[in-house]
Amino acid sequence: MAKSALVGVDLGGTKIYTAVADLRGRIISEVIVPTGAERGPAAVIDEIVRSVDDALCAAGIGRRALKAVGAGAPGPVVFARGLIADPPNLPRWCNVPLGAILEERLGTTVLVDNDANLAGLAEVRFGAAKGFRDVVYVTVSTGIGGGIIFGGEVFRGADGAAGEVGHMTVLPGGPRCNCGNRGCLEAVASGTAFRRLHGYTTKDAAERIARGGVSGRKARRDIDELAEWLGLGLANLANILNPQVIVVGGGLSNLGPILFVPLRKAVKKYGFSIAGRRVKVLRAKLGKRVGVMGAIALALE
Amino acid sequence: MAKSALVGVDLGGTKIYTAVADLRGRIISEVIVPTGAERGPAAVIDEIVRSVDDALCAAGIGRRALKAVGAGAPGPVVFARGLIADPPNLPRWCNVPLGAILEERLGTTVLVDNDANLAGLAEVRFGAAKGFRDVVYVTVSTGIGGGIIFGGEVFRGADGAAGEVGHMTVLPGGPRCNCGNRGCLEAVASGTAFRRLHGYTTKDAAERIARGGVSGRKARRDIDELAEWLGLGLANLANILNPQVIVVGGGLSNLGPILFVPLRKAVKKYGFSIAGRRVKVLRAKLGKRVGVMGAIALALE
Repeated sequence: MAKSALVGVDLGGTKIYTAVADLRGRIISEVIVPTGAERGPAAVIDEIVRSVDDALCAAGIGRRALKAVGAGAPGPVVFARGLIADPPNLPRWCNVPLGAILEERLGTTVLVDNDANLAGLAEVRFGAAKGFRDVVYVTVSTGIGGGIIFGGEVFRGADGAAGEVGHMTVLPGGPRCNCGNRGCLEAVASGTAFRRLHGYTTKDAAERIARGGVSGRKARRDIDELAEWLGLGLANLANILNPQVIVVGGGLSNLGPILFVPLRKAVKKYGFSIAGRRVKVLRAKLGKRVGVMGAIALALE
Repeated sequence: MAKSALVGVDLGGTKIYTAVADLRGRIISEVIVPTGAERGPAAVIDEIVRSVDDALCAAGIGRRALKAVGAGAPGPVVFARGLIADPPNLPRWCNVPLGAILEERLGTTVLVDNDANLAGLAEVRFGAAKGFRDVVYVTVSTGIGGGIIFGGEVFRGADGAAGEVGHMTVLPGGPRCNCGNRGCLEAVASGTAFRRLHGYTTKDAAERIARGGVSGRKARRDIDELAEWLGLGLANLANILNPQVIVVGGGLSNLGPILFVPLRKAVKKYGFSIAGRRVKVLRAKLGKRVGVMGAIALALE
């Protein structure tokens, strides 16, 4: 008897992560391949289709048992049309109707959303924010992205472009951001910003702090400063949205308490009234699978 | 035959504005009285009950025909419990269960919400944003407040405290805000902030600009600077929420084009990608009745 299955695809700038899951969202098989983004959209889409087939094959499931595919892609994504607008790390992708193309190629329903929205959905369904309804997810690594999950659903805004929290201006006239503006949260509180400002990475910072001494104390002050900026940004989100929880994921969340202790302090400092007092700041739980699990959560809906 | 009616109450720091409306939201009678906030909650609540009776009497409608009461109060309001938390301009109101008290006194359903949420709802139902579903309303006068209306419904957040857009930090280390923090949007872009910074009011500024000359040019530069700050704040909201429309109300919206021309320019400047390009910035339409019309819209639901 043929089993029914879902597929999640996490399309990143460097890797395509594909997984087959059962109808309860449990992963049966996984395939990870390089994106080869430099070859342009058509080749990448071929790669996605091949990965889906490979993952189905590994799971012992035929294409006809495939009920739905969820796919996450670098934002902005026009959700209703499955359209990928103009992601900075997928060159030559400009308004590619990924949803429609994959539907035709795979012969099943395909939903496409912003990867940060899906990561947020995954943390709410399966991770750090399980059991909470009103959640903001913020991923902090080379850039800063966000997903807003309220009432248990992704809040996409009018054009599916909500959640671009990395481009809120927090330091007018501050460092130049990749988007062209100055003083965006991403330009002062991302891993890239840290490295540009201090000449070493946040991973180096964690090692120096572990070793202690003068250089460890300096590294701790530098991380405290990043935490202050990030906390200011998260408090702005709390004041505007009044979530129960803000989940922080992405590479920088691996810093653990050396980030989260000063971060929680900064959120309390900049938070306003009830929203500021009530919000919990939690560390993401799902790690590298967060994107593909979000894509599966989307397919589940 | 008894007509059915709704009542809206706009409880402000200086005035209580009460109106009786029919079931389509059309106003039949209005009563405006001073709040007398210094007398404390019990006396103010007596005043509200008296106003409701007076307005019903003026409309020729008995209490038994009253289907529901909507009330707007200075935030934060815990919507689900009709609880007024700790509004700065209603002294000695601390966690007053206004909804429950009015329900008992008036013998009908009473819903209480933040006045900025209700003003936003009114502009969506009856005003500048009629026909739009995803709207942020920002009121700029002595302070700055906000209401988020998405999918045609008020977005209240986990504790009913969403929309406190005036307390987003936009200038870290900047001027002190009433909330105790520094560099809140309210501390750099409200009427109070303008007066503190420049020593004259935005109304004076409008008059000077109309008269022209050196002092008019100076006033225009000062308004441009306020518009730049306000535009930065509105662009942050656009980037986070991706609304179709941001409606700007409150006293400062009366400045008209001298505010809105530089304001729209600043929103485009700080806006990100799709959300920034698409958002429309509109001037509120409902004037002084916005609060009571929002309260009626709430009662209608």
